[in-house]
Amino acid sequence: MPNGDCLFCQIIAGEVPANKVYEDENVIGILDVHPVNPGHTLVIPKKHSRDMLEADDATLQAMIVATKKIAQAIIAAFEEYDSFNLELNNGRIAGQIVPHLHWHIVPRTPDDGLEHWPGKSYKASEAEEIAAKISAQIK
Amino acid sequence: MPNGDCLFCQIIAGEVPANKVYEDENVIGILDVHPVNPGHTLVIPKKHSRDMLEADDATLQAMIVATKKIAQAIIAAFEEYDSFNLELNNGRIAGQIVPHLHWHIVPRTPDDGLEHWPGKSYKASEAEEIAAKISAQIK
Repeated sequence: MPNGDCLFCQIIAGEVPANKVYEDENVIGILDVHPVNPGHTLVIPKKHSRDMLEADDATLQAMIVATKKIAQAIIAAFEEYDSFNLELNNGRIAGQIVPHLHWHIVPRTPDDGLEHWPGKSYKASEAEEIAAKISAQIK
Repeated sequence: MPNGDCLFCQIIAGEVPANKVYEDENVIGILDVHPVNPGHTLVIPKKHSRDMLEADDATLQAMIVATKKIAQAIIAAFEEYDSFNLELNNGRIAGQIVPHLHWHIVPRTPDDGLEHWPGKSYKASEAEEIAAKISAQIK
């Protein structure tokens, strides 16, 4: 059900303009207005859910299949791109700003200077304990 | 078809150890050995493909449904987490190291200090031109 206060629901309904690169029955793709690199695209399911945890499986499946098509098109459209990052910010603390599920396709160049977050190390047996803690919560 | 030289195919076959948090018919989830935050998990389809563009739709659909389950379990397992990032590095230039499709679930805390890549702005009419260029390549 569309949410009248939701920016992405308004874009999907055509009430707010956006640079659309893709549309099917379940999903739209629009350019991010503040691109990390040119062609940076948001993939947005038409069905409103706050985030991935609230979305149903069919919505997520439609979203990932559309994402593959859009990523292929971005790479085909620009000679300088052959790689991309897909990024979901799920929840405010993870950087989610618009509370309507969406993720980002960010095409990359060798010299764009973007860095990934550094990894740390687990202490002895810590990883085993954490894996057991997570797997005990799988539903 | 498993690829004997592939680290993730070896983990899936049980030939190389890993801290498994999830397994179903199509997908495994293992802890990243260099976690950005504790519980950082890799979601890996059992069927070998180099990346998202090479993977079939059924593989991607199984992967995203498993990802939701694993992300829910990570959040349920740790009191300090309610948000996460999902990140795919597709291609070497995007930071892909192991050439077997996988993405990262990175749980987040308010004080972990991780920053997102900065956005830029398009010049007048540039966004419209780029959107048209991409949408012309949708297959």
